[in-house]
This record gives sequence, C-alpha cells and structure tokens, in this order.
Amino acid sequence: MPRHFLTTADWSRAELEALLADARALKASPFQPRLEGKSAALVFFNPSLRTRTSFQVGLHQLGAQAVVLDAGGTWPIEVVEGAMMDGDPEEHAKEAARVLSRYVDLICIRAFPKFQNWAEEREDPVLTAFAKYATVPIVNMETIVHPCQELAMLLALQDAHGALEGKKFVLTWTYHPKPLNTAVANSALLAATKMGMDVTLLCPQEDYLLDERYMEAGAQFAKDAGRSLTVTHNIEEAYAGADAVYAKSWGPLPLLGNVPAQQEMSAPYKHFIVNEEKMALTNNATFSHCLPMRRNVKATDGVADSPRSLIIEEAANRLPVQKAVMSAVLGATS
Amino acid sequence: MPRHFLTTADWSRAELEALLADARALKASPFQPRLEGKSAALVFFNPSLRTRTSFQVGLHQLGAQAVVLDAGGTWPIEVVEGAMMDGDPEEHAKEAARVLSRYVDLICIRAFPKFQNWAEEREDPVLTAFAKYATVPIVNMETIVHPCQELAMLLALQDAHGALEGKKFVLTWTYHPKPLNTAVANSALLAATKMGMDVTLLCPQEDYLLDERYMEAGAQFAKDAGRSLTVTHNIEEAYAGADAVYAKSWGPLPLLGNVPAQQEMSAPYKHFIVNEEKMALTNNATFSHCLPMRRNVKATDGVADSPRSLIIEEAANRLPVQKAVMSAVLGATS
Amino acid sequence: MPRHFLTTADWSRAELEALLADARALKASPFQPRLEGKSAALVFFNPSLRTRTSFQVGLHQLGAQAVVLDAGGTWPIEVVEGAMMDGDPEEHAKEAARVLSRYVDLICIRAFPKFQNWAEEREDPVLTAFAKYATVPIVNMETIVHPCQELAMLLALQDAHGALEGKKFVLTWTYHPKPLNTAVANSALLAATKMGMDVTLLCPQEDYLLDERYMEAGAQFAKDAGRSLTVTHNIEEAYAGADAVYAKSWGPLPLLGNVPAQQEMSAPYKHFIVNEEKMALTNNATFSHCLPMRRNVKATDGVADSPRSLIIEEAANRLPVQKAVMSAVLGATS
Repeated sequence: MPRHFLTTADWSRAELEALLADARALKASPFQPRLEGKSAALVFFNPSLRTRTSFQVGLHQLGAQAVVLDAGGTWPIEVVEGAMMDGDPEEHAKEAARVLSRYVDLICIRAFPKFQNWAEEREDPVLTAFAKYATVPIVNMETIVHPCQELAMLLALQDAHGALEGKKFVLTWTYHPKPLNTAVANSALLAATKMGMDVTLLCPQEDYLLDERYMEAGAQFAKDAGRSLTVTHNIEEAYAGADAVYAKSWGPLPLLGNVPAQQEMSAPYKHFIVNEEKMALTNNATFSHCLPMRRNVKATDGVADSPRSLIIEEAANRLPVQKAVMSAVLGATS
Repeated sequence: MPRHFLTTADWSRAELEALLADARALKASPFQPRLEGKSAALVFFNPSLRTRTSFQVGLHQLGAQAVVLDAGGTWPIEVVEGAMMDGDPEEHAKEAARVLSRYVDLICIRAFPKFQNWAEEREDPVLTAFAKYATVPIVNMETIVHPCQELAMLLALQDAHGALEGKKFVLTWTYHPKPLNTAVANSALLAATKMGMDVTLLCPQEDYLLDERYMEAGAQFAKDAGRSLTVTHNIEEAYAGADAVYAKSWGPLPLLGNVPAQQEMSAPYKHFIVNEEKMALTNNATFSHCLPMRRNVKATDGVADSPRSLIIEEAANRLPVQKAVMSAVLGATS
Repeated sequence: MPRHFLTTADWSRAELEALLADARALKASPFQPRLEGKSAALVFFNPSLRTRTSFQVGLHQLGAQAVVLDAGGTWPIEVVEGAMMDGDPEEHAKEAARVLSRYVDLICIRAFPKFQNWAEEREDPVLTAFAKYATVPIVNMETIVHPCQELAMLLALQDAHGALEGKKFVLTWTYHPKPLNTAVANSALLAATKMGMDVTLLCPQEDYLLDERYMEAGAQFAKDAGRSLTVTHNIEEAYAGADAVYAKSWGPLPLLGNVPAQQEMSAPYKHFIVNEEKMALTNNATFSHCLPMRRNVKATDGVADSPRSLIIEEAANRLPVQKAVMSAVLGATS
C-alpha cells in the first residue's frame, strides 16, 4: 500500500514538521534530482493556475515530468463500487486509477465538491476512490481540504514568527459574492491547531461553522497540544491580541446546494473584510489568505500590500512544500 | 516521404510482429534515450486521458518531449485542396501540417469522425490530409481505426496465450446508451485476422456489420493466413470454445447521423453484455475491452475483475507499443 | 527591473538586428543549453497552435521547460490598481504576476483585445499590468502587437532579399468574413519602417487606417531611416514595383465593437485578395502572411503556393526568433 497525502489529519505533527524542514531545504536549494526519470499525472477536475504551475515546475526541478490532465474536459468518473454504469459516467475510478498507476509514479488530484449534497461530498468521493484503487501514491491538490496550502501557510508563518507554539491564530470568515468551498478553511483549522497555536474561528453566526469533522479534529488537536480552539462571532474579541490573521470565505453549509439562499445569508456580512482598523487591534499580526483573493472585498489593499502581508510568500511556498510532499510519498527525501 | 503509422493495414504481419517484439523489450527496459532532444506534437481534435498520458510519458522515457495541442479548442481545419475558405475553417491542413513539420519531429493525431456523413468520414479526411502534407511521420492516435490499441491488445493476448495462430477470437458488439465510433472494432478485426486467429464477429443483426473496407480486409487477412472470419448473430455459437472475447459497442452504420434512431435500434440488445454465463461457454477465454468501459453495461463486474480479464494489461501496454511505433517511424529502433 | 519584450517600439534597430543575427545562429544550431533548468509560463488568454508549439519546443531546445496555462479556462483577471473586486474577476494581476514570478524565470503572455472598447484596449491592459507587477521578464505572444511575428517576418525577408534597406514593402489589407485584430498589421508597419524599407499601406479607405500610435511611429521610423511611409487606396499604385507584399485583414477601428457594421463595411472589398494578376505588377515580389490564412479569400492558392511565398518559412522562423528573444531578456545570449 502506497503512502498517500490526502489530508494532514493522517500525518503526525512530527511528520509535518519534517516536511516543513525539507521544504525549507528545498527553498534554499531548488534543484535536486530526487525523482529523475519519474512522471506524475496532475489530474484536474477543476481548473488551476498556481497549483498547476507549482507542481509542474517542482517536478521539473526534481528531475521528473508532469502530465497535466484536464479531467473536467473529458468525461465524468464513476466512484461507486458495483455501479450499473448506464448514466453519465463513461469510466470507473477503478480503471482510471489502475491504468494511470501503470503509466506514472504519482497521481495528484484536484476535485472540488459539487456543492449539491454535502452528506456525499464530505466523504471526498473522487479522492477516496483514487486512493483506494491506485497502486502509486496520491497527493491531494485540493478537494474538501487543501493540505498543500496548509504546509505553505505554516512555512510562511514559521518564517515570520519563528516557533508557532502558543501564538494566537485567527481564522476569519469574509464575504464573497459566491458561496465558496470550505477546503482552505478546514485546512487552516487543522494545521493551526495541530501546530500548537491558540486558534480562534471568527464567523458571522453558527451557520458558518465548518463541518463537525474539522471542528472536532481541531478541538482535539488543540487539546493534545494543550491549547485552545475558540469560536466567536465578535470581531473585536477575535482580533484582540492576534499574532496571525488568516482570511477565507465559504458558503454556509446548512444551505449548501441553494446558492441564492447562501448569498442572501452572506450579504449582510460584508463588514467582515480585513482592514487596517481591525488589524490595529492585533499584536502586529501577519495577514494571509490563499490566492486568488478579491481585493477590497476580502481584505483592503492596505492590508494586502502591508509589510505584514504573507500572501505572496505563502503562494511561493507552494513550490517547495509540494516538492517535499512528493519526495516523501515516493520515498525520495534526500 | 516519411513512413507513417496510419493503419495496420499498411504494415505487414512481420512488421507488426517486429513492433510487438520491440514493445516487449521496452516493457522490460522502459528508459532508452532513442529520441534524445526530439519533440512530438500530440494533436487532439477529441479529448483523451490514456492516450495523452501514455504518449507523453513514453516520449519522456525515450528522451523526447511532447507538445500537447488541444486542436478542438482552436479552430476548424480545412482539408480540401483548392477550397475557397470563406466558411468556418480558419486554417488549411496544408499549412498546419507543414508548419508543425518545421517545429517537431513527429505528429500524432486524434480525430474522430463526426458521425454525420460516413461516405466522407470513412476517408479519414483529417488524418489523410496531415499525412499528405506533413514532412515528418504521422502516428494515428485514433480516427476511424485505432492501430495503437490493436498493438496493445495483441501484446496482451500474446502474453496471455503465447502464439495466437488458430486461437478463436470473438469480437462481440455490446450495448451502450450512445452510438459510438467503430474505430476500435475495425481495428480489432484487422489485428486479429492479420495475426492468424480464427475470428468471429458477433452482432445483433446485419445493420451492425462494420464498413465493408474492414469486413473485406479482415476476410482477406484470414484467407491469407489460412484462417476464417465468421459473422454470427447467435450468442451461444459465438462464445462456444472461444479463447479470447473482445467487447466493443458501436452505432449501426446505416443509421449514422440519426442518433435517436441508432439508440432505438440498439435498445433491445442490452443482453449482449459480456457476463459470467456467456464466459462459461468458452475455452476459459480471456476478456478484454479498450478503456473506458461502462461496467455492468458492456461487461459485468465479475468478468471485468476476473483473473482472465486483460483490460488493465491492455491499457498498460499502450505505453510500450507506442514507444515502439514512434521509434520505428523515426528510424530509431534500438 | 527586468527587460521585457512587449513591443519592438522599445527596442532599437541595432538591438533588433542583434536578435535576428542570434536567431540565424539558432536556426543553424538549434540545441543550445542556454536556459538549463529554467522554466517559463506561457499564459494564453486566447488559444494558439503555432505560438504554443514554437515556444514550447524552443524552450526545450534551450534546456528549459514550458508551463502552459490556459488562462481563458480559469478566471478573469483584474488589472486596475485599487479596484473593488466585487465583479467577475477573482484575481488581480498584481498577485498573478508576482506569484508566477516566484515559480518561473520568464512569463510569456497572449492576450487579445476584446474588440469592445478601443480606448481602453489600445493601452494593452493585461500585458501592461503583468509588466508592471512581474519581477521576471515578460514576452509578448500577441496582444495589440505581435513582435515575435515581426522578427519572424524580418528573418524571412532578409533570407529572401538580403539587405532590406530601400526595398518596397506593401502591407495590404485583405477581406476576411470576421473583423480581426490589428496586431499583426501594427507590427508589420513598425518592423518594416524601422528596418529602413519604403513602406506602402494599402487599404480600402481611411476607416481602415491603423491606430494613430502605429501610423505615427511608422512615419517617424521611416523618417529616421530616410525612407517613406505612404498610404494608398489604389491597388495598382501599391503593387507597382513592390519587392515584398504582406497581407493581413483587420476590422475598421471606428466601428470596433459593432461586428455587423464592420462586416457590412468590409463586404465590398473582397477584391483586395492577393492574386497572380496583382503580383504580376510587382518587382517579382515575395509574398507573406502570418498563419492561419484563409486560402482563396486572403490570397489565392497560386500566390500562397508559389516559389516566392514565404508563409511557411516565416512561420518556421518563429522558433529561432523566439529563442533569441528569450535568451536576450534572460541575459543568456551565447
């Protein structure tokens, strides 16, 4: 059984620290022929700019090559074992995963939920099916979590703050005209709690709580580290004394599948934008957000462009952390 | 004039055997720098998963690089010499083929028929035009035949059965909700007859016969080898004593262009599915099908997942056979 | 500040001559590891066949790798500094350019105008924004000018004519069923005047004049070289004694944004097609056109296929001139 990188929940804090240490080494010394002659399939069920570029460049710098598959442009994939395939899907993940495993050494997958039926989508069906059938390692390029983004965030935070233990990390919901995936929010919660930060989740009201799987895992990780996970709807309380502010928008889960209702619920909360006034309440906090980010909707230009903004550094970190992850699952860490 | 790989009908049995032998060598020893520094254009007028991956990885393993062109995303190509180009096509194959020939060493093309006018489409107009104008070799990645799939099938059959001479090969039509391309069926018929197998074509009724070009070529190849090509509509008769069962669905040619009529004609024939009962009539036959394959529509899970199923091996064979073909047309066989 | 290649207007005649000399060297000796280990992002907001292939192959031949980004398939990019991003764009060029600059060594961009608002589009907003924010060099793969095509044309003309000084170059508008981009026409005017040719712009009437920026730059370049830029609507006068005929269609700028009105205006001018009768008026002129080219609409088959046609050579030259440009902006000229 290959070791997959599906979610950081499966990797211990020590293992994540080792990935970050290797990423730091790869950031200093980018060209290392660890994966000479190898190939990886990058399977995108959803489009990508940063992920595609950083994986492809990273593979090249390690001596391997990427095969980019725009799976959204081909056909739907069946994931249910035993399905009678007389509907839309032309192919079963069982074949796709096993055949790709014969062509390449690594399969990386991006497959967002469809935002129609959370009970099904929270099982991460496409990623789970590939992990079940593939005979080579699978790396998650964002599904219902985004573990590579987690590592990139952690590396940027470590570079800015040194040790993260006990630092106050605020994950704040922000407004966005469309209901977005919860993946990065889930991941920020998992990563920050696991690394021993005191984590505050700020959101407008309880319909914006993340899936209980992540709320509970975050609480457990916080407890294991002797730290706290706090939920608040009070902006001032959240920002007060914060060391790191991380912003992300997502749609309220109880209304998932009903976009107009989600939009109507979120409309009154535009004031959750990260701005200079809120940042003034913090302990000179760093600011970050995964990209893309709508400026002056999620955060003001003043915040995004301040010297404490880590948005570019975090995005740049995708390159070395992913090289570390691919090296690890292929047993090719230097 | 470069040597193209457009259809196996242009290649002798001895030449095909040599390609299979080289493919077997490449399967054992994948990394050979036969095409160092070379580039190939993979021109897809239709999307692809396996073909794209196997060609791109194969080129990399031979030291070359693939340039993947999603020609469906650009503009229609004119193929008629002397055409007044005031319609949709923005570019003539004459320019496309000659310019690509200046950039790359090899051009591989996927161009399905449009299923509108078989009298035109049976001439394989896009592939034929590129072969006419290009000054570098052309490889067929599936048009109205699929010769790379043929070789992959033959390699899997040889590995399972040893010599194929005189083995009973059954090509069975199966139901599919949409009328599909006849390319793989044409190719299975050509390959199996040319290699000296006793071939039975099983289909519901004579509207499902393949184009006379392939029926006649198959009959001739069988005759040349001292073997038979038999057509039957009787399921039990076809399966009795079979050594290899190959399944594929296709739309009835006389109704091509009329999808609802094709669907109506095929609807009563769902019982052509390959299942355990039918396989029990055979001589412990192997089963195969090109991928993708709708499970429990074309073949049951029991058949697809049995130890006699070659579907994954055949798909995996695409990699070495294509490397052998590219080496051959570029005169770079080891 | 990196040196960009946005328009030849920013490069002196001597610099362009040096690029052409290097391109000639690269045409003779294609494999040079000048960019070993480097990566370039090819960002296509519009689809491409030749540009994509020639850049990707060229990078490979220099030891680098291309990451091809189909930006039309992702999300709209905001380019206005300080914008409140609550509309369609999900990402600001400020982030896209800075992040890509962290992943790759070079960013190449194709971004056509949208043909809706020339006052805005003539500022080349996407290219300008990337050039402003990127920290690596930017190369123009066609926006409102097409400088790589200019160099390819000049190299073909030099090979056919030797020194270009004082040769009569005719840029003729031709009919096309759709109003096209003026980029190649702008570029042909800039290149031919800067290299000291006597340039005649032939078009049906003054609504087909190019943007005044290019008309004025062309006039200035001609003056600097002691040569002329002449506009005429008289076909015989234009062709008389021409050494080089270059054809291109474009939509009349005063009607930009109104496609039916542009089409109605152009419909009476189908006789501007380049044909054997017109070419007979010239000084045995060469003929060229960027590709794709609608045959028997823009030029007759007789002209396109004559020994004086440079269309394939010009297209083939894209490969070495782009290698020269990329080498130059990365300071890696041999």
